Amino acid sequence: MVTTKDTADYVAVDWGTSSFRLWLIGRDGRVLAERRSAEGMTTAAKTGFEAVLQSHLDAISAPANLPVIVCGMAGARQGWVEAGYLNTPAALADIVTAAVPVPGIDRDVRILPGLAQRDATAADVMRGEETQLVGAGAILSSGEHLVCMPGTHSKWVRVSQSTVTGFSTFMTGELFDAISKHTILSHTVGDGGAFDGTHPAFIEAVKQIRDNPALATNRLFSVRAGQLLHALPATDGKARLSGTLIGVEIAGALSTVAAGGICLVVSGSLGALYQAAFTAFDLDPILIDADDAVRQGLASAARALWPL
Amino acid sequence: MVTTKDTADYVAVDWGTSSFRLWLIGRDGRVLAERRSAEGMTTAAKTGFEAVLQSHLDAISAPANLPVIVCGMAGARQGWVEAGYLNTPAALADIVTAAVPVPGIDRDVRILPGLAQRDATAADVMRGEETQLVGAGAILSSGEHLVCMPGTHSKWVRVSQSTVTGFSTFMTGELFDAISKHTILSHTVGDGGAFDGTHPAFIEAVKQIRDNPALATNRLFSVRAGQLLHALPATDGKARLSGTLIGVEIAGALSTVAAGGICLVVSGSLGALYQAAFTAFDLDPILIDADDAVRQGLASAARALWPL
Repeated sequence: MVTTKDTADYVAVDWGTSSFRLWLIGRDGRVLAERRSAEGMTTAAKTGFEAVLQSHLDAISAPANLPVIVCGMAGARQGWVEAGYLNTPAALADIVTAAVPVPGIDRDVRILPGLAQRDATAADVMRGEETQLVGAGAILSSGEHLVCMPGTHSKWVRVSQSTVTGFSTFMTGELFDAISKHTILSHTVGDGGAFDGTHPAFIEAVKQIRDNPALATNRLFSVRAGQLLHALPATDGKARLSGTLIGVEIAGALSTVAAGGICLVVSGSLGALYQAAFTAFDLDPILIDADDAVRQGLASAARALWPL
Repeated sequence: MVTTKDTADYVAVDWGTSSFRLWLIGRDGRVLAERRSAEGMTTAAKTGFEAVLQSHLDAISAPANLPVIVCGMAGARQGWVEAGYLNTPAALADIVTAAVPVPGIDRDVRILPGLAQRDATAADVMRGEETQLVGAGAILSSGEHLVCMPGTHSKWVRVSQSTVTGFSTFMTGELFDAISKHTILSHTVGDGGAFDGTHPAFIEAVKQIRDNPALATNRLFSVRAGQLLHALPATDGKARLSGTLIGVEIAGALSTVAAGGICLVVSGSLGALYQAAFTAFDLDPILIDADDAVRQGLASAARALWPL
């Protein structure tokens, strides 16, 4: 591992609600070291943001003068330093210049702001995803795009020539978790194993909700009834719950905008699920790796803040 | 309190998942005594169904030979004695004759069955509401009806000339509870006070989801974003959450059937909320008291099983 100050350029941190990821980036743009932990905002708010960051910097022997660029919930009101929001419509280029320095520490640490849509009837916020959009800037720099960013709170973002014109959050991942654990469906899906986008129960659930999204809260109960009456296996139940929630997200997002030019920004197993769901909607989005996008977004910000 | 065997006729019990209600009914049909407790199926499955029932019978000095008619989750597989399901289409009159006796005890206790809709793509079950339908039999005996029965698991039942032809369950009440307590909305609605159907945030949420039910999981997040960006008070957030879930239930139910001849079977404060939501949908349902309906349904069953 090479971590002298001759080759290390800056540190990039994606600091979410429940996860912390750090990369040491070299002058040539390569990742020299990486750290991942569960010390997200919720944990760090108790143990101290500076202490969490420093422990990871120490673990990779990062030089004391190395600057750090941060995105995500560390910039929330309950986070380290509030980094506020840029209001939509927001040019992606303005996100970087609105970075907020962490006061009172020796190291140069900047936190990127989130985005806010202040419409009275469609209030919405994001924090972290805006940096992925910056990272996907090459694709988004011309034309109109609809960007789907799945997760705990999935974001659907309308981007026009590198400006975010509006966005909508769907509580898909968090609802999956809360319904799986804290409703009668816990008896049905609790023991379910892993499944992917080829699972017939997943695809069927997506198609059912695509055909009538208004039945969402009924389709959820049918997962339970299917187990009682047809001995639906737990994994099938889990796949149906997931397909219902992802299906109503896609149907909802597409109910307000044209479906052209969709980008799917996602990493890991969630990518295959969403791709399968999009196929059920007869859509074929451009795939962008979310991990790459956030690193590239942080790199753009670092490059603008600290030119070589 | 008059509880001699000369005047007492039978005992009626509505035994739900989390609640137990018992009425001692006289030969003239009047309620001679009433008991309510939180010893629903979940509790009684641990402490013993017979012991729970006997403790309440003792408390009202019920004669030893008095028969007991039971509806609800006591007849579930995890309940006292499994009372099975009648399959749709199911004549309301057949529910009473399918009552299952509790074996191995001295007293004559019968548990009414639930209803099952075994369609592969719309599996559904009810247990308890069928007895309310029996109790509302006078209204349902002719013509076509769509019966809305709000609750933890709201039921929408299609009844044609006293026969249940089909039904759909919506997880409205349970989702309200799980989302309020176990998602990011807990920060937003946790401190919310009471509200009713006249609350503007409730009505607005119903109308928004009426106009586009596909946005359900987005509207849920907007409750959180509304608090962050517009300092939405907790009670407004709670009213919006409720309006969104009740709105998507009504929109979903009406998406598959004609909206004519709606009956609303409900008790307590939930009644006013649903009535306000129906008004937002330009509908004016016939109101039936759910407590009266279940008692009348149990009375019909008792009368058929144990003629005077």
